Amino acid sequence: MSTLMNYTPDNLWQIEQKDFDQKFLGKTESIMALGNGYLGTRSAEEESYIGEHRDTFVAGTFNNFDENEVTELPNVPDMWAMELVFNGKTMSLTEGAVKAYSKRLNLKNGELTREFVWEYQTLKLKFVFRRFVSKARRHLLMSLLTLTNLSDESVKVELKSGINGQFSNEGSQHFTDGEKGLMDGKFIQMMPVTTHSHIQFVQTVEHKISLEKVKERPETERRAFFMNYAFELNAQAEVSIEKRGSIYTSIDNDVKNHELKALRETAVDELRKLDVLSFEQLLAESATAWQQIWEKHPIEIQSENFKDQLAIRFAKYHLHSMTPAHDERMNIGAKGLSGEGYKGHTFWDTEVFMLPYFNFTHPDIAKNLVTYRYLGLDGAHKKAAANGYTGAQYPWEAAWPTDGEVTPVWGAADIVTGQATKIWSGFIEQHITSDVAFGVKQYIDVTGDYEFESEKGYEILIDTAKFWASRLEYNDSTGKYEIRDVIGPDEYKEHINNNSYTNYTAHWNVSYVIELIDELRMRQPEVYGRLNQKFNLTDLSNDLRNKVNRIFLPAATVEGIIPQDDSYLSKKIIDLRPYKEADGVDSLFHKFNLEQVNQMQITKQADVLLLMLLFEDLFDREQKLKNFDYYEPKTTHDSSLSLSTHAILSADLGKLDKSYDFFNQAINIDMGEYMKSSDAGIHAASLGGIWQMIVFGYGGVRMVNSKLRIEPHLPKEWSHLTYGFDYQGESVAVEIDKEHLKLTKLDNGHPLVFLHEGIEYTLKNTLTI
Amino acid sequence: MSTLMNYTPDNLWQIEQKDFDQKFLGKTESIMALGNGYLGTRSAEEESYIGEHRDTFVAGTFNNFDENEVTELPNVPDMWAMELVFNGKTMSLTEGAVKAYSKRLNLKNGELTREFVWEYQTLKLKFVFRRFVSKARRHLLMSLLTLTNLSDESVKVELKSGINGQFSNEGSQHFTDGEKGLMDGKFIQMMPVTTHSHIQFVQTVEHKISLEKVKERPETERRAFFMNYAFELNAQAEVSIEKRGSIYTSIDNDVKNHELKALRETAVDELRKLDVLSFEQLLAESATAWQQIWEKHPIEIQSENFKDQLAIRFAKYHLHSMTPAHDERMNIGAKGLSGEGYKGHTFWDTEVFMLPYFNFTHPDIAKNLVTYRYLGLDGAHKKAAANGYTGAQYPWEAAWPTDGEVTPVWGAADIVTGQATKIWSGFIEQHITSDVAFGVKQYIDVTGDYEFESEKGYEILIDTAKFWASRLEYNDSTGKYEIRDVIGPDEYKEHINNNSYTNYTAHWNVSYVIELIDELRMRQPEVYGRLNQKFNLTDLSNDLRNKVNRIFLPAATVEGIIPQDDSYLSKKIIDLRPYKEADGVDSLFHKFNLEQVNQMQITKQADVLLLMLLFEDLFDREQKLKNFDYYEPKTTHDSSLSLSTHAILSADLGKLDKSYDFFNQAINIDMGEYMKSSDAGIHAASLGGIWQMIVFGYGGVRMVNSKLRIEPHLPKEWSHLTYGFDYQGESVAVEIDKEHLKLTKLDNGHPLVFLHEGIEYTLKNTLTI
Repeated sequence: MSTLMNYTPDNLWQIEQKDFDQKFLGKTESIMALGNGYLGTRSAEEESYIGEHRDTFVAGTFNNFDENEVTELPNVPDMWAMELVFNGKTMSLTEGAVKAYSKRLNLKNGELTREFVWEYQTLKLKFVFRRFVSKARRHLLMSLLTLTNLSDESVKVELKSGINGQFSNEGSQHFTDGEKGLMDGKFIQMMPVTTHSHIQFVQTVEHKISLEKVKERPETERRAFFMNYAFELNAQAEVSIEKRGSIYTSIDNDVKNHELKALRETAVDELRKLDVLSFEQLLAESATAWQQIWEKHPIEIQSENFKDQLAIRFAKYHLHSMTPAHDERMNIGAKGLSGEGYKGHTFWDTEVFMLPYFNFTHPDIAKNLVTYRYLGLDGAHKKAAANGYTGAQYPWEAAWPTDGEVTPVWGAADIVTGQATKIWSGFIEQHITSDVAFGVKQYIDVTGDYEFESEKGYEILIDTAKFWASRLEYNDSTGKYEIRDVIGPDEYKEHINNNSYTNYTAHWNVSYVIELIDELRMRQPEVYGRLNQKFNLTDLSNDLRNKVNRIFLPAATVEGIIPQDDSYLSKKIIDLRPYKEADGVDSLFHKFNLEQVNQMQITKQADVLLLMLLFEDLFDREQKLKNFDYYEPKTTHDSSLSLSTHAILSADLGKLDKSYDFFNQAINIDMGEYMKSSDAGIHAASLGGIWQMIVFGYGGVRMVNSKLRIEPHLPKEWSHLTYGFDYQGESVAVEIDKEHLKLTKLDNGHPLVFLHEGIEYTLKNTLTI
Repeated sequence: MSTLMNYTPDNLWQIEQKDFDQKFLGKTESIMALGNGYLGTRSAEEESYIGEHRDTFVAGTFNNFDENEVTELPNVPDMWAMELVFNGKTMSLTEGAVKAYSKRLNLKNGELTREFVWEYQTLKLKFVFRRFVSKARRHLLMSLLTLTNLSDESVKVELKSGINGQFSNEGSQHFTDGEKGLMDGKFIQMMPVTTHSHIQFVQTVEHKISLEKVKERPETERRAFFMNYAFELNAQAEVSIEKRGSIYTSIDNDVKNHELKALRETAVDELRKLDVLSFEQLLAESATAWQQIWEKHPIEIQSENFKDQLAIRFAKYHLHSMTPAHDERMNIGAKGLSGEGYKGHTFWDTEVFMLPYFNFTHPDIAKNLVTYRYLGLDGAHKKAAANGYTGAQYPWEAAWPTDGEVTPVWGAADIVTGQATKIWSGFIEQHITSDVAFGVKQYIDVTGDYEFESEKGYEILIDTAKFWASRLEYNDSTGKYEIRDVIGPDEYKEHINNNSYTNYTAHWNVSYVIELIDELRMRQPEVYGRLNQKFNLTDLSNDLRNKVNRIFLPAATVEGIIPQDDSYLSKKIIDLRPYKEADGVDSLFHKFNLEQVNQMQITKQADVLLLMLLFEDLFDREQKLKNFDYYEPKTTHDSSLSLSTHAILSADLGKLDKSYDFFNQAINIDMGEYMKSSDAGIHAASLGGIWQMIVFGYGGVRMVNSKLRIEPHLPKEWSHLTYGFDYQGESVAVEIDKEHLKLTKLDNGHPLVFLHEGIEYTLKNTLTI
């Protein structure tokens, strides 16, 4: 199979596929997805293939198909497809001969290129397709085909291209088939509206063909509007076909008038205005916007393996393609905007895996992400109330902030019974609430955004602690408060009691808020007064205080193992190696069903170990080593959230070879040669994980107990690492080699204090350790 | 292009395609569609191709996507598809070499066969796919693949097959994703429900594979449930893979308990019970049911062109595949159950084109079809009331009887303005109301079903006349009642006044009901009393009588031409020949828009000429000849309803060569070599037209003024014709050659009176003229 990905040390800004294979369409659709945070789109080919997933999403435009389905990001009518017919034969790479194929994404400027020579009978044509989603103009999508007739005969070319809304989310259609029209005789417009959330879309497309004598004919189908073009392409001649498009919606926060007529005019006006700018000029403009991202804290890795450098660019490219930096009412989906997987929903992935990147490099974007959780308080109150609790219980899966819980209730079929399995996460995977609180605290610690803290942060922290106080269950026989019937980070264990991760993080949430209330009362009486009106802080504080010391925190066994939950350690142990070596994440489930896996010491992803990473001061090194050695062999790493945690923790523990091994697996979750893993979209958490492995794991940056620590340890394959970060308004550049750690910041009178191997350092301008 | 259809005099029960071409998938999907009146399904290939339309419909299960769309027949989750992978390569005929390809439909037993040898690299496999929809068990779908490994190496086979509901009606999804399950470990069940009409479906599929050592694994996706099978197929070995399925719904009239649980059990019980019957046995059972249709009034044609015989079998096969003979709440769609075109809706096509076939050959089915119109009275009252009229105004397009008008309001884009064009038919194509009345009258005349007449027929006839009385517009200046702002049968003329077809047929409706009321009052006082309560017959009769003689009936011009409408004859005349010669029906509209065509003497289909055919005694031969010569050259025959009318009328007029020319064009609308005409489904009216051309046109059968007439005239290519018909309870066999007309019926004491060349004959047993 020669369809594997192609990476080269000659171009560390490029990911490439050198051969086309219809079996693996999903791979490059996802990992070469384009986006600007406002919209994202899978890089499906212009021509159609069986198995393609032709998805475009606009962040935040959630809708549900009917009352039996949860809200999800609707697949917007497609604007990229082109049907190309040459002398009556439809171009398809499954027929004829394909030569010099290359599909590649330029991470630096976000340009997708696909080029090849296609030969079929007497036809010989060269195609160069180029595309980008503008990072400078959020609504704009651009595509350019340069087509060369390499044969000695003129070819009759027919092109059908426009906007096609006959697609859906795997059969669920989210749009009412709205108005369609042709403005100025050239701007195709379709105006679909989401069926329940009633979000008005305006999609506009225009074509520019570089030839005279092109016959054109508009054609509508149900939910679709096309232009048909026909022309002769002379022997050895070239033609360029440009397709420009835009998407506007009635929830856009950069448009004032959301009336349909005004939106239509805004869209057409923009394209009219851009008429003077060429594809190249618009691409350059977008590249400039990307350049600003690349110039912010660039990471340079000198490694024996050139893919390490590529991986961090890949990660940052996608993080900025998928993150709705423009609108605080939106957050990052578990698959970003690159696939229908997880329906565009936001999980704890944001707080634990992506937020740290933004905290330390783009605090403005991080602020939007935590503000989203503030806007989600209403939904969290509703969820708590529905479950008989008080305070803010965050939804396991979140969509539009006020949607509340949107985890689907039914999942795939059980392979033993054939019946749909119930998805319990929305009901009992409750650690999300302390994760959100933890994320808010981290954001404030890293950025020093005390305005956010005061206006929104305190409220989230207090409201989540209040939830936990109502959630705790008193056990008469032990005199402890327990948290029973939950799912922890390890989703292979359902309905377990006292998951360590859940109990410890809930305990942190409660105990932190006890301190916080005291602090506020003493030092910020005004803020205290305001919050007191909302929460009755004295009573709340008493309640928290009454419970905090009796929260059951599972203690280590005599062997030093923190039990994942009450029953885990008594379960059967099996050898997981055969399943870990198999391709794909579900080989284990080809043999066992979830109930069976529930009865074994099999862990999907870092659970106790994640706790030890996030709250590192609660456990000593010895304990961490023992637990690492115990849990890792029982962990399938079936979640993309697992490997980076293991890489960082093992780096912390000095197991650098092991760590680098995890690093290599982790960077290959999407970029790697396994061609099916990204079908449903790229793994957003794993991208945040790539940055964390480098900056937290090897760069050694960490917030511990609200204090910055920098303790690098490079793997032996790396000779040099440069990175940077923002910390409480200061911008720090870091250079590391095997011997030295050098830090640089502007000498602006704001010295920066950090810990390094137990010693407190103060950075004024430059410091080398 | 070697993808044309293959017909052979050696098998006049077979239609065949000898080459596969992905460009023309729609052709055989439609013309080889399977069905039994309860359900119909396009014959899309098992493996998937770009451009396929994988449709299955269950008659009567209408639903609308949202309030902006009209009800349509939902595309039911697919049960035929199979993904076949050999040594990791997905089978597709677009790749590798395909040999000995044949896709063929056996019209006699309804069996579809597709066979070929596929070679790809070292693979060499023979496929024989067979399918049928049981005519004996309405819920049952059967499929059988016999796969032979022709190579000398064992092949690893993977099969993914089940039920897939990710399809839609061109993007409009009609189903809620319901329960899914696996019963007895082998019956896959999916339970989708229509979103607004709330019709519960139960779809069940089971697989039987003739090998031991088959690995199996169930897999659910959103809206889908599959089984994955994997096995080795030895060199030169054969395996058979049978897929049995059934569809039940909560509106089934052969099932008592429509509760979901009961439906599921009914479905599984049936498959369990059928376990003892092989594919061949179930096929034989279905063939027996088909045989009963073939034995009812068989038509034998001795012609120079063997396709003539094939055509009538093709027509009858499809008429019985698409007609919901089992349920009077349903009628025939304009594309039967063979495509999404016209949304499964019923038009005047039923009364004018298909009903005559059933009247004369299956009066029981005909009774259902007219009863459907009786059930539709409610909807017709609503439509009349909504438009400010009284009585029954039948919907131009009809779905579930109580749905009322379901013509979509917006159609394809205007090629000049690019805006969607308004579809006016639902508002102003009003002749449907007199067509329905005419159909009822014909049904009663032919079948002598006086019970229906008394219980339902009178009501439809009176209610439609009542509508016309309210619809007529008095013109002060002429003193006439006019019918302004309508569309006649020629849909290229919108908003015209006094369309002759409309005015004459309305006049017939009104004047017939005046007589009828008189008759009832005098001869059936009881019936009169009952109807009088509903209609106030004295007042109605007075109103009708007051208007009938002043209804404006456009008179012939000095040249003898009956004007199609008030303005037609003053419009521009263009030479239509270039457009008539082009492939496809819309070449005219690539040049002109509807508004421009409106301004020219261009007629889509028989309009005045259809009037002259249906009401032949209103016009003399001379008039008919003049009008035929005037209108035919101006007629594009863009409607499939046009050619058969012209064929019959020209046969009546003695233009037999011309008639046979129309006949040949008409039988080729679907069966012919133009590969795109049937994409949206076969043309139901044209199939009824094929029977009419033979039995009415050449066999010379006709009801004129409630009297049976038989006046055959064979085209010179035909030497002999045998057919039969039912007439008022009598079954008549007819043999015709160039010299003689021979009629035979059972000598049962019920002599049959008919006209032949102006002379009244009485048939007791046998009669030769």
